[in-house]
Amino acid sequence: MVWPGPIYSSLFGDQELQALLSDDAFVSHMVAVERALARVQGKLSVIPEDAAAAIDQGLQSLNVDPARLAQATASSGVPVPGLLAVLRSHLPPDARDWLHWGATSQDIVDTANALGLSRATEVIKGRTTALCATLRDTAIAHEATLMAGRTRAQLATPTTFGLRVATWAKPLLAAEKNPPDNLGVQFGGAVGSRAVVAPHGFEISKLLATEMGMVDASPWHTDRSKLYEIAHWISRLSNGLTKMASDIILLSRSEIAELSIGSGGGSSTMPHKSNPVAAEAILTLNRLVQIACAGLAQPHTEDRDGAAWAAEWALIPQMVISTGAALRHAASLLHGLTVNTEKMRATISAQPSVMAEQVTMALAQDIGREKAQELVKAALARALPFDVALRDVVPPSFDLPAALLPEAAIAPSIEVMRSILGRPG
Amino acid sequence: MVWPGPIYSSLFGDQELQALLSDDAFVSHMVAVERALARVQGKLSVIPEDAAAAIDQGLQSLNVDPARLAQATASSGVPVPGLLAVLRSHLPPDARDWLHWGATSQDIVDTANALGLSRATEVIKGRTTALCATLRDTAIAHEATLMAGRTRAQLATPTTFGLRVATWAKPLLAAEKNPPDNLGVQFGGAVGSRAVVAPHGFEISKLLATEMGMVDASPWHTDRSKLYEIAHWISRLSNGLTKMASDIILLSRSEIAELSIGSGGGSSTMPHKSNPVAAEAILTLNRLVQIACAGLAQPHTEDRDGAAWAAEWALIPQMVISTGAALRHAASLLHGLTVNTEKMRATISAQPSVMAEQVTMALAQDIGREKAQELVKAALARALPFDVALRDVVPPSFDLPAALLPEAAIAPSIEVMRSILGRPG
Amino acid sequence: MVWPGPIYSSLFGDQELQALLSDDAFVSHMVAVERALARVQGKLSVIPEDAAAAIDQGLQSLNVDPARLAQATASSGVPVPGLLAVLRSHLPPDARDWLHWGATSQDIVDTANALGLSRATEVIKGRTTALCATLRDTAIAHEATLMAGRTRAQLATPTTFGLRVATWAKPLLAAEKNPPDNLGVQFGGAVGSRAVVAPHGFEISKLLATEMGMVDASPWHTDRSKLYEIAHWISRLSNGLTKMASDIILLSRSEIAELSIGSGGGSSTMPHKSNPVAAEAILTLNRLVQIACAGLAQPHTEDRDGAAWAAEWALIPQMVISTGAALRHAASLLHGLTVNTEKMRATISAQPSVMAEQVTMALAQDIGREKAQELVKAALARALPFDVALRDVVPPSFDLPAALLPEAAIAPSIEVMRSILGRPG
Amino acid sequence: MVWPGPIYSSLFGDQELQALLSDDAFVSHMVAVERALARVQGKLSVIPEDAAAAIDQGLQSLNVDPARLAQATASSGVPVPGLLAVLRSHLPPDARDWLHWGATSQDIVDTANALGLSRATEVIKGRTTALCATLRDTAIAHEATLMAGRTRAQLATPTTFGLRVATWAKPLLAAEKNPPDNLGVQFGGAVGSRAVVAPHGFEISKLLATEMGMVDASPWHTDRSKLYEIAHWISRLSNGLTKMASDIILLSRSEIAELSIGSGGGSSTMPHKSNPVAAEAILTLNRLVQIACAGLAQPHTEDRDGAAWAAEWALIPQMVISTGAALRHAASLLHGLTVNTEKMRATISAQPSVMAEQVTMALAQDIGREKAQELVKAALARALPFDVALRDVVPPSFDLPAALLPEAAIAPSIEVMRSILGRPG
Repeated sequence: MVWPGPIYSSLFGDQELQALLSDDAFVSHMVAVERALARVQGKLSVIPEDAAAAIDQGLQSLNVDPARLAQATASSGVPVPGLLAVLRSHLPPDARDWLHWGATSQDIVDTANALGLSRATEVIKGRTTALCATLRDTAIAHEATLMAGRTRAQLATPTTFGLRVATWAKPLLAAEKNPPDNLGVQFGGAVGSRAVVAPHGFEISKLLATEMGMVDASPWHTDRSKLYEIAHWISRLSNGLTKMASDIILLSRSEIAELSIGSGGGSSTMPHKSNPVAAEAILTLNRLVQIACAGLAQPHTEDRDGAAWAAEWALIPQMVISTGAALRHAASLLHGLTVNTEKMRATISAQPSVMAEQVTMALAQDIGREKAQELVKAALARALPFDVALRDVVPPSFDLPAALLPEAAIAPSIEVMRSILGRPG
Repeated sequence: MVWPGPIYSSLFGDQELQALLSDDAFVSHMVAVERALARVQGKLSVIPEDAAAAIDQGLQSLNVDPARLAQATASSGVPVPGLLAVLRSHLPPDARDWLHWGATSQDIVDTANALGLSRATEVIKGRTTALCATLRDTAIAHEATLMAGRTRAQLATPTTFGLRVATWAKPLLAAEKNPPDNLGVQFGGAVGSRAVVAPHGFEISKLLATEMGMVDASPWHTDRSKLYEIAHWISRLSNGLTKMASDIILLSRSEIAELSIGSGGGSSTMPHKSNPVAAEAILTLNRLVQIACAGLAQPHTEDRDGAAWAAEWALIPQMVISTGAALRHAASLLHGLTVNTEKMRATISAQPSVMAEQVTMALAQDIGREKAQELVKAALARALPFDVALRDVVPPSFDLPAALLPEAAIAPSIEVMRSILGRPG
Repeated sequence: MVWPGPIYSSLFGDQELQALLSDDAFVSHMVAVERALARVQGKLSVIPEDAAAAIDQGLQSLNVDPARLAQATASSGVPVPGLLAVLRSHLPPDARDWLHWGATSQDIVDTANALGLSRATEVIKGRTTALCATLRDTAIAHEATLMAGRTRAQLATPTTFGLRVATWAKPLLAAEKNPPDNLGVQFGGAVGSRAVVAPHGFEISKLLATEMGMVDASPWHTDRSKLYEIAHWISRLSNGLTKMASDIILLSRSEIAELSIGSGGGSSTMPHKSNPVAAEAILTLNRLVQIACAGLAQPHTEDRDGAAWAAEWALIPQMVISTGAALRHAASLLHGLTVNTEKMRATISAQPSVMAEQVTMALAQDIGREKAQELVKAALARALPFDVALRDVVPPSFDLPAALLPEAAIAPSIEVMRSILGRPG
Repeated sequence: MVWPGPIYSSLFGDQELQALLSDDAFVSHMVAVERALARVQGKLSVIPEDAAAAIDQGLQSLNVDPARLAQATASSGVPVPGLLAVLRSHLPPDARDWLHWGATSQDIVDTANALGLSRATEVIKGRTTALCATLRDTAIAHEATLMAGRTRAQLATPTTFGLRVATWAKPLLAAEKNPPDNLGVQFGGAVGSRAVVAPHGFEISKLLATEMGMVDASPWHTDRSKLYEIAHWISRLSNGLTKMASDIILLSRSEIAELSIGSGGGSSTMPHKSNPVAAEAILTLNRLVQIACAGLAQPHTEDRDGAAWAAEWALIPQMVISTGAALRHAASLLHGLTVNTEKMRATISAQPSVMAEQVTMALAQDIGREKAQELVKAALARALPFDVALRDVVPPSFDLPAALLPEAAIAPSIEVMRSILGRPG
């Protein structure tokens, strides 16, 4: 969306979502709103039935080139006056007057955008569901794959790759489970009171929603809370994807190599490299998502705020398309991911000190934690490998080999993993 | 919170919320978590019952001065190791070892912060409810108070002050109706797998939640979605308050004066001024809220992210306290507000062109909208007052005085207002 | 840039700047860098002179369709490997090998983008200079036009429109006077050490700069400070434009009407309206500029950061094009602006209390400020018009009419205005 | 600053800077401004010389408890009316009236804050200079220390630790070399025209600057460009520190261990851990800095904007103190850093493929780059170690051991390093 030409569009854009939020789709939605409004008002005899039918049918097969609206949009700040001029030119004189009856530009733009956004959100939701399924499968497939946990950029204690994957899934499952409501139709007239069509305002709004296949709503000209809820949901989703991408970048670093990314990017000068292109793209896209989200948070003053309103037209697509692209990259990342289970195990073996907590807790059962910690810290401080150093200091009766086995981490990790994935047992 | 000294604290801070999120409260919550953990683990025989009782009772009346934790926090990056050293010094040697059993610093800090935040959120919710009630009363009291609607900084068509107030209430009512869930307890151990206390991890977490009066949760060390949901809820609330404050600043401008703010601030040199201090403060506070919200959106990498985590400790209180202060200002603003109904009516009378849409629509019923718009635009273009100019051009049979009456806006405005306030009829 | 289709592009986009930052221009700049690099390396005998000439001439008239780079960019994350494949296919085999010698993708992308950005910055600077001239003329033309000053949304004391315009110009004059340096060429090779071409790295960089008409620079792969300086300069410029636009929106409000905007936008339903489209657009664009600026502030880790780097490719054009469009709107706003000097004067007359400070200070010379303030406050509190109320309380000898004359504000306002505009007297 | 209690203040706060920006310092600066103003106006006979002397001396040893200003600040939105009430109570009646003559609250607050900020900036500059010196020494000490370069989270080609350190220094050296101007005095009166003291406004401002040891300035009530320049400079500085901290976190990861952080933080449960507390703190602080910077970018409307102005009072200290704390952590990080040169060398040896580019370029001299790349890629693809695999494929005459020597990277790295550090030769 924010990428003006083809070079970066395949990488950072999203054809499907761009189509749903394109100018073409927008114009077609606006025409659909005007037609539905006429039908509804005809039915309620707010406008003559003949005029309603003429509008509905006259605009049915009309394709308005968005470029025709550019000039009028530049001068009035909204595309509706220009659109109405085009539409009226295609209607018989006695129908023309009844087009857009009792509506204001914002009614048309907001309802059309709400429709486009709800379709885009469906795509986002679908991709999220698919990604959650992949993550679930990956987690379960690796529920017993031991790896070193890492906290604060240091090796911590053993965990499983399955549990790590479950933590990636966690925010996405939350997003999947609690999607935001769709925006309803907007029908408020000049200042949100539906005065021109009184006392039919509520019926019109309700029937308009039915005609458009949308939900009804009281006028939300200046209260964009529901739009923010959608944006906030996208923000959390994108941030969740970014957690996964960040972890994958770290685990597939040359020095760690516990994961391999199948489709890494080549370098123009270094033949050995395989860059984590998709994962980096998710990070880049998240930056675009989060700043757009921040940019939305501004109040709409009085009864219509031209400046805050127009900002949404740029920011919402930026959020939606970038997150859609990130979901695409996330799916391809997971698809191409190789889990190097031996390397994971080797990391633990190479640094037996990651077992320090487990040894301490086991020893503590025998000699108390304070003393156990002292012994373990002393062993860690020696120049010897940790497991060797321990041998000299633990009580002879203590089962050191058992205490040093990372496999103890598997069962509890599985339990937590399953609780996150929502499939106990 | 962000105000280091007393000068600005009364204006921009909030004593009640600052107390709930203070270092003292935090330390006391952390001690409560350690005690509850011991009780629960004693009950489950994960640790000796005697030790559990000694920990519970030994720390019951202990008050730890937060300043004692400063040094250790600076060196380890979290307050828990320092706190544990203090707590252990107050416990008998054989209980000491069983304190903090199977827990990690993040378990204690997150659970303690979640408790503080849930209490602070209650305060926010309470103030929101009270404010909604005031707004509802104000709206209903002014449901028939005509005022000029304003769109894009221009006079639009008549509306009512009641409807305007309802649009202020709309986002707050949404926030009131859909508060975010509280954060649950955090109990995951070193890497979120509860390995040390296996197979008792789930029971411990569940009972810990009960003991703490909180909800249970799977480990959320790196998935902060629920925290973001709270932050996003606050963001929407604060933005809603800011809409109201912005509108009040505009309507109480010297040149408009349709509202008067009772407690305006004096100037150091201009004796005639009454500055909209409380409304401006809401705007300032919203800025602090929204940037803090933006600052939260960063993924927590691997199994614990020291940098992203610590940012929350600054940003969440900044959001909560600033919004709490804004709610206070909003209540006082509404309380001191004088609605100058005559001035509202005078604005409309002074610019009869605000009736242009209504006249057009009424005329359109007789002569078609296109022609009606032509006549009205011609009348607007004349040097005469709009109502005078109209007299010359409308058909003799047309009831111009009726078409110029703004009172027609009242009934539909009431209807929309009531639908927003949720009290039909 | 952020507007995907034609509807909003005329309003929020900028053809001239979009062309300078287009994919076509970018590809052509990248080819120019590769050619210049070959020429320079041929001259220094780093590569064979024949090969250099073959590259330079072979690519001279080559036009690469950006769409051809899309696929390769999606897979490698940068457009250079794909571009090199295309270029090599147009070169004889023995020249092919010497293309891109010792360079890395980032060298090409950064240098090409730096060139595009420097051209775009020239356009921005030119528009800024032109706008400053208009503002200066407007200010001087209205140096004696009295208007009410407004502080904190309240009438304050008299000022001049000339001084107000000078405050609009102030940040723009600062931007004009202190433009940021252009980015230099980037030539660092794989990790910024220019190792492959040692010991010719410095000569190559220096000559490359000369060939490209750019400045030389040490490798800035990960230090984007100069790019931030440009972004920060744009941020300040855009914010300055927004101050002007905000003030114009306020002063052209229906209730104030001290300014009229010539080219206001029409409403789809309210025939009397003239919306401040250009001014609102500046506000909208500023939002896009400022969030993009915020999005840039992230460190580039290690020796190349794929994620932070790519974010720049979206954010810098968003800033540049939006600010360019805002400058266009600012120029048209000023061009169409009508200054309603009588209305400005009438605002002061209608609220004589704006003279309260001046009366107080004049009275204070006679009776001390404390007493003067008491008298003035008492007069303000009475139900009478302020000037009438004053008559009863000031000493008989006091020249009240003189103290009430707003003209006293003109001379000092002119003096400050001139000091800001930098043209004393 | 944003940390309300002692727990986190040692880690994230900064005593020296907090003192310079404290309420106490602020009040003392405000009193200094009022005294200087009186002295200057006395000298110019704008106010009686006796009154000037009485003000200057009467307030000389006065200490105003900031808490005394809290109530008045809450009601008027600025601390000046409350301060003036206190100050007047300490002055003889005939001097009282001449205090704050011709000034407005913003004059006093802005000038006092500018003074505090200039002192804080000096501290920041001093720490930056010291850090630059340490970085320079570290870089030079390690100018020949080979390490693997890393691009896009993958091993790239060899570089030196000295060059890496130089890239850390680069943005800090730029900040050191181009510090922002200090803010000048603010003296504009009610609306920035200095009307009350005409025609002495310019002389007063100039002499006030001299008295305060500050620079003169035309009124900047609404043009905050110079403040933004300072904020932007801090933003770049903080981002530069964060680059260093991020790199150190990566290089000191358990799996890489090429750097060791002396003063790592302990874990509450894992005895083997050494967390990169100071480096993480820099990341956390940078987040606070960058959001505050983003929050500043809002225009000041009309002649004084109460909301935008007050936001600065929170955001500027947040930026300054956080960056000051980050500089402290950066210094301590570098001080405690151990460079594990053998581990750095071992990383290269363990992955000879990092020599792939160098081998390719050397081979290319013999057999052309295309063929060389083919051979190298084939060698990389074999199951053998890269150096072994190469032996089979390179021409017998090719000096493979030389081409595999990473030492070739040292000389060019030193050259680039020195160019960055500004000490050629």
